[in-house]
Formats: sequence, C-alpha cells, structure tokens
Amino acid sequence: MSSLLIRNGTVVTLDDAFTIVEGGVLVCDGRLAAVGAEADRHPDAAGARVLDAAGGLILPGFVQTHVHLCQTLFRGMADDLPLLRWLAERVWPLEAAHSPATLAASARLACAELLLGGTTTVLTMETVHDTDAVADAVAATGLRAVLGPCLMDRREPHIPPRLWKDGPDAIGEALALHRAWRDHADGRIRVALAPRFALSCSRGLLEAVAATADDEGLLVHTHSSEQRDEVAAVVAETGLRNMAYLAATGLASPRLCTAHAIWLDEHEMDLVAGHDVKVLHCPTSNFKLGSGMAHVPEMRARGITVSLGADGAACSNRLDMFDEMRLAATMQAVRLAPGALPAREVVWMATRGGSRTLGLDAEIGSLEPGKRADVIVVDRGGPHATPAGDPYSTLVYSARATDVRHVVVDGTPLVEDFALTTLDVDEVTASAREAARTLVARAGL
Amino acid sequence: MSSLLIRNGTVVTLDDAFTIVEGGVLVCDGRLAAVGAEADRHPDAAGARVLDAAGGLILPGFVQTHVHLCQTLFRGMADDLPLLRWLAERVWPLEAAHSPATLAASARLACAELLLGGTTTVLTMETVHDTDAVADAVAATGLRAVLGPCLMDRREPHIPPRLWKDGPDAIGEALALHRAWRDHADGRIRVALAPRFALSCSRGLLEAVAATADDEGLLVHTHSSEQRDEVAAVVAETGLRNMAYLAATGLASPRLCTAHAIWLDEHEMDLVAGHDVKVLHCPTSNFKLGSGMAHVPEMRARGITVSLGADGAACSNRLDMFDEMRLAATMQAVRLAPGALPAREVVWMATRGGSRTLGLDAEIGSLEPGKRADVIVVDRGGPHATPAGDPYSTLVYSARATDVRHVVVDGTPLVEDFALTTLDVDEVTASAREAARTLVARAGL
Repeated sequence: MSSLLIRNGTVVTLDDAFTIVEGGVLVCDGRLAAVGAEADRHPDAAGARVLDAAGGLILPGFVQTHVHLCQTLFRGMADDLPLLRWLAERVWPLEAAHSPATLAASARLACAELLLGGTTTVLTMETVHDTDAVADAVAATGLRAVLGPCLMDRREPHIPPRLWKDGPDAIGEALALHRAWRDHADGRIRVALAPRFALSCSRGLLEAVAATADDEGLLVHTHSSEQRDEVAAVVAETGLRNMAYLAATGLASPRLCTAHAIWLDEHEMDLVAGHDVKVLHCPTSNFKLGSGMAHVPEMRARGITVSLGADGAACSNRLDMFDEMRLAATMQAVRLAPGALPAREVVWMATRGGSRTLGLDAEIGSLEPGKRADVIVVDRGGPHATPAGDPYSTLVYSARATDVRHVVVDGTPLVEDFALTTLDVDEVTASAREAARTLVARAGL
Repeated sequence: MSSLLIRNGTVVTLDDAFTIVEGGVLVCDGRLAAVGAEADRHPDAAGARVLDAAGGLILPGFVQTHVHLCQTLFRGMADDLPLLRWLAERVWPLEAAHSPATLAASARLACAELLLGGTTTVLTMETVHDTDAVADAVAATGLRAVLGPCLMDRREPHIPPRLWKDGPDAIGEALALHRAWRDHADGRIRVALAPRFALSCSRGLLEAVAATADDEGLLVHTHSSEQRDEVAAVVAETGLRNMAYLAATGLASPRLCTAHAIWLDEHEMDLVAGHDVKVLHCPTSNFKLGSGMAHVPEMRARGITVSLGADGAACSNRLDMFDEMRLAATMQAVRLAPGALPAREVVWMATRGGSRTLGLDAEIGSLEPGKRADVIVVDRGGPHATPAGDPYSTLVYSARATDVRHVVVDGTPLVEDFALTTLDVDEVTASAREAARTLVARAGL
C-alpha cells in the first residue's frame, strides 16, 4: 500500500457542513483515509511519504468545468474583439490549423498552468479533429479531465472546411475515444459529447447527441446564451430561445453542462432548474468578450448547480481559478450588493459545484474519507495574504495561483513545493512557443 | 558616479509615441542616461552594476494613485459589507486603534506587497493621527510616496472621537509634515492634503484646504462620487452634487486628485475636464464595495487624466496593479464593448496617468533619458504568459505580480530577482500579524 501524509495545515474540507479542522490528510492507495487531527495518528501514517503544508490551507483541488485546452496557444492572439469576429477571424482558423503535435503542445502548456494554479480537474471542449492527441497529452500529466471533440456540422462559408464534420462521423469518433479510455488511467480521462453551440449544429446533430448521451451515460458539454446576438439568432432560426431550443432537442438533463447561460428568461431558468442542467460560469471570459453578467446568485437560490471555469486562453488569457473566484464574487457585489455571492459560496462553486457538475461528487470535490485524493495546499504567509483571516476570504480575495504549494491528483503529487513533477516547465513553454509560431503561419494570420 | 545597467529585455518606454525597443536602460546617479540598444554601448555602461532582464519587459514602475497604507492590516476583516457599514463598523474603529507602531507595521507590509508587484510610487491617504510614523516607514523602504493624514472634522456619533480633529490643527499637522520632508529623501516623500470626503468634512475645512493647497502648491487627495447614496447625501446637505460641491469650495484644480468619480453627471464631467481634475480609478474596490463602474473611456475621450489604484486592502484585499489593470480593461468590455479600453491605454493609465496625476510627469512615468530611474522588469516566460504576444496584452491580461523580477526606484534596486532588498519579508509579515492582533483587540472587534 502506498501512503501519503499531508500535514501541518488547516483543512478546508468543503464537506456539506463546511467543516474546517486543523491537521492534515492521509492518503492510502489514492483515496483519503483520514482527515484532520486523526491523519497524523492513523496507523497507516507511519511510513507514509510526507508533504509539509507549512501552515497553509489544505483543500480539494479546483474543478474547472469550462476550458478549451486546444486554445491555450492562442493566448494574446485574439484580444479586444467581439465574439463572432473572435470566432471567425481567430479561433476557427487557428483551430483548423492544429495538428496532433500542436494540440499536444497546447494541452501540455494548459496542464502546466492549471496544475501550478491548483486545478486538478477540467471539463474541456477540444476542436473537431485529433482529440486523441489531447487525451494522450493530458493523461501523461496526471490531470483529471473530461474531454470531448467539438461537434459542429454546419457547412458555412465563414467556418474553415477542416472544422466541418457530419454528425454521425463526429459522434462515432467521440464514442471511439470514450471506449478507448473508459478502462484506462483509473478513470481519470473521461469523454463527453460536445456540440459547440446551437448555431453551429444542425437540429439532427443535437437530437443524436441527446440520444447517444442517454444511451451511453455521457455528459454533454456545450455553450449557450452567452451573448444577446446569439440568442436573437437562435430565436430567428428556431422560434425558440437558446435553452428552450436545447430542451426541445431532448438535451435538457442533469448531464447537460452549458457554459455561460447569461441571457436566460424566466422560462429558461425554470427549465435549467427543473431538469438540473448544470451552468458553467466563466467570469473573465464573459467580461472580456463583452458577454454580460450571469445571474449566479439568482440561479443558486433556485438550487441550480453553478461551477466555474476560465474558458480558453484565447478569451481569458489565464487559466486561473483564483482569478475566476475573485471576479465571480466581486461582479455580483457590483451588480447586486456586497455579500450577494459570499466567498464561501464561491469556493463551493470552485470545488463541489464542479464535482456535482461532472457527476463525480461521490469521488472528488471535498476532503472526506473514502473520496479520491485530489488535494491542494495553498500558502497564506505572503505579504499579499497577511494577516490571514477567514480561509474562504483568503482563497477568494487574497490568494493567488502562485501560492499553490502542493497539488495531488488521485494520491499522486503533481506539484511539490511549487514545482511540477510530471512536466518540465521550460520544455513545455519552449515547445508551446514553437507550436504557436507554426500555427500562426499555417493559419495565415 | 554610480551606474546601473538593466539589459537583455524589451523596453516598453511609455513615451508619447509608445516606443518599444529591444535592449535595456542605463541609469547614472538615479536618472536614465540611455534607453534601448544604446544602453549597452554607452560609455558609462562599462563598470556599471548589471541587472539581467532575462528577456522580460522593462517598463516604468507602476504609480498607484489611491491607496491607504494604514488599512493594510485590515485585510480580510471587512469583506462583503456595504460602504457605510464598512466604514463605521470596521475601518474607522480600526483606524482609531492605530498606534505609531501598528501604523509602521501596516505601511511596511503594504510596501513589501507594492514593491514585489512592481508599484514604485503611491498616493496614499493615511489616518488622522501619527502619519509621521508612516512617512518614516515608507522612506526606509525606498518606495516613492505622496502621503497625507486624513482630514475629517465632523464630530458625529458614529465616528470614533480619536478621528475628530479640527481643521486648523489637522492642516497644521499636514503642513508640518510637508516641511519636515520637503528637503529630505531626494523628494521621494511628499505630502498632500487629504480631506476624507465631503460628508466627513465641514465646508470651512474644504475651503481652508483649497486655500492652503494653492498657497503651498500641494496636491489634494480625496474621495468623491463613489456611491449613489453618498451623492444623494451630499445633495441633501449642500444642494449640489458631489463634484459640483467640491468645485464650489474652491477645490477644483489640476491638483485635485479624486478617487472613484463613478457617479458624475454631465455638468460634473465638464467640471472635471475643464479644471483638469484628476480621477483615481479603483476597479476592484468599486466592484467589491458595490459602488459601480466608472465611465473611464468617456472620461479619457474628454481628455481627463485617469490613473489606477488598488485602494486599501480593507476593500480590495490585494495592492496589486496587475489586478487593477485587468479589471479596468475587462469591465469596460462588458459595460460597453470589447476594445472600449484597450490594453495599451490601461498600461498608460498605470504609469503615465499616474505621473501626470501627481504632477511628476517630468520626473517619472516613462523611460526617457533624463527622467528618474523608476524601472521594473516583468517576466513573460511562465506558462500563464506563453506564448507572449503584444507587450501591452501580456501586461494587462497575462502577467501577474509574481512575474516582477526587478524593481528600481531612483536608481536603487528594491527588488532583485524577485526578492526585496530593503525589507525582510518574514520579519514584515510576522510584525504585521502581531500588530493586527493588537489592533483587533484594541478596537474591540
């Protein structure tokens, strides 16, 4: 049996009672065996490898439920543009230019940033082709991921032909990826069906996704109601607003994970709440692309599960949960009032909200005996976090990605004393720079 | 002659043409002697101390034009409260509890965070008493500061009596501080007159401040038009809106620096533009306290000088210019449209906007021969900033405070290879923790 003891910290468990205890956590064979003061005293603690939390906060790893690893190389290439130009002029041409090698470089760059910042699980929408290269790259880093090739079958002139793929072919490829991974990597790599958004999919594709997701028990990962223009276009095409249209295709279910959900009317809010559809809130992306401010406190008051993600580096520029937590909280203060979305609620969204969204709440999202050991340690000794008060306030308002001292996924340390264990950061950034140059040249930008 | 060569970077000069050149900067006796490729070749470069920029961005130090160093110890003690409760229940009792020793601890903690994050100059409003302790502490760190005791002469029951001070006494103390410092520290420590805000000052005090500031050529540092309730209260008391009232007391001038300025009507916008009043924009504070979104692009279009500050740690929790730049840009994208406040404009606000606000534009704010050498070096090699594109995009959207490699003020390195040279960070944080405990006990919180 392999044991790991993380000791000498304050454990922010994120259990249902929001218990906070002094001590540590003991991990045996990838699962939590003891939490709190008992961790040190547990019989299996003797002989365990020890990671010193150095007085920091020990908490579940962050779950980012909406990212695009394939867009990490596009960082800084698509600033200050409105959404449709951003897609047509930058993101689609660059996605179409990707090869398996550049996709792997992009995914590895993303994983380095995500792990260094305490994110242990992502739900990611990749591009139309070569998602197997992404899965291989992610699996090698140790990050936990639910990933899927993007499905988009509308052959429109502003979309590069390389991103056209008929529905049956695309779903077939996603299922092949699902079958290839479901018995590997101890379940760390899972596959979702990922129709891009209503306007890039035929109704037939959306209906086929709904049926396949039901048959196979897969998550569906999409975007909707991100911008007012998009809602208007969906209404013009279908006679229905965005979420209502997704429901009409059969997609509304607890396995539907929809990014953004900013412009929902009351009927759509009822649909989301009634079907337990999951909302993936992306504060920085929604600001930078000028999308709007999601009504998160109102959704939470209705019992809707809302989680957090940085979206792609092409829109948010950093894949940093601390940024997203801070803006998630402060944007509701300015939209409604201070305290409208308290710090504790935001940390819940960043952890439990994510595990519930992914259907993995029995496995990850909190530090409780029996759960998988996805654990991070966050320092609170720096000048910017001093004096350290309430742990939730520290996490949301003071702490930064660079305060993440250790990161453990499935019991394996992936960051130790601020350094990656499975990636060579200089090699990753050098490969990323070279891949980015290749992509830009190939896309003719 | 003492010489310092910062070499091997990309120099973002922030001169009027926004020149960017490869190379470095040469500093002789505290002033810039050469910028760009010439720095290496200049005759005085031989024998100079060398700081390697390691391929990073070399730019003028950030100027934060609205902070409260005395509130740094209140970090995390006043979250999620509306402004008036925030002041009456937390900030005022804690300020009243300050001693010279706790003020020094608070200022040193602030300086550590500010310098590590690339801020080289602040305009700071301190509390009513013992500002000499703050001036001494700041001077010892090497930071450049314009500071002033807060002036507030209204004896109201919700204000602790220790914060009551009659106008003539308060102005006299500020002038004594001004006289004590004006011939010291090579002008690095200057004094401003700092009436807190209209509602905490008598009209007589404001008029006396205006007259004294004119006579002595001092800056006036205040808050106004931060929240709608505050504007309504000023209207109820004076019959005038906030900025109009300040103008009526004689305060409107190019030396008036007013934080926030969110709720200005058209007439007040004309007043601000016409009198060249400076606006100190504090994005995080305005969000977290639920104040509103300042109309920065509209102000800039009228030629108003807008600069940036983090406000106190009691409201923004971090004194981090990178946070403020990022939110300044993205909040305008969501309020207006992507690109409404481009990254280059935001970096200008963080540097030149600040130097113009303080009347120091001939001395600091850009990297041009003859100016004082307030210079920072920002890494762009980390995963979160890779690939590095446009320098302004990198600075606003990707870079973080922890990317600041070197910080030089007046030619003296205060941060070298990410470490403070004039402060022992462990001693500073330990003293701050102890001082915070003392303050909380003394304030009875």
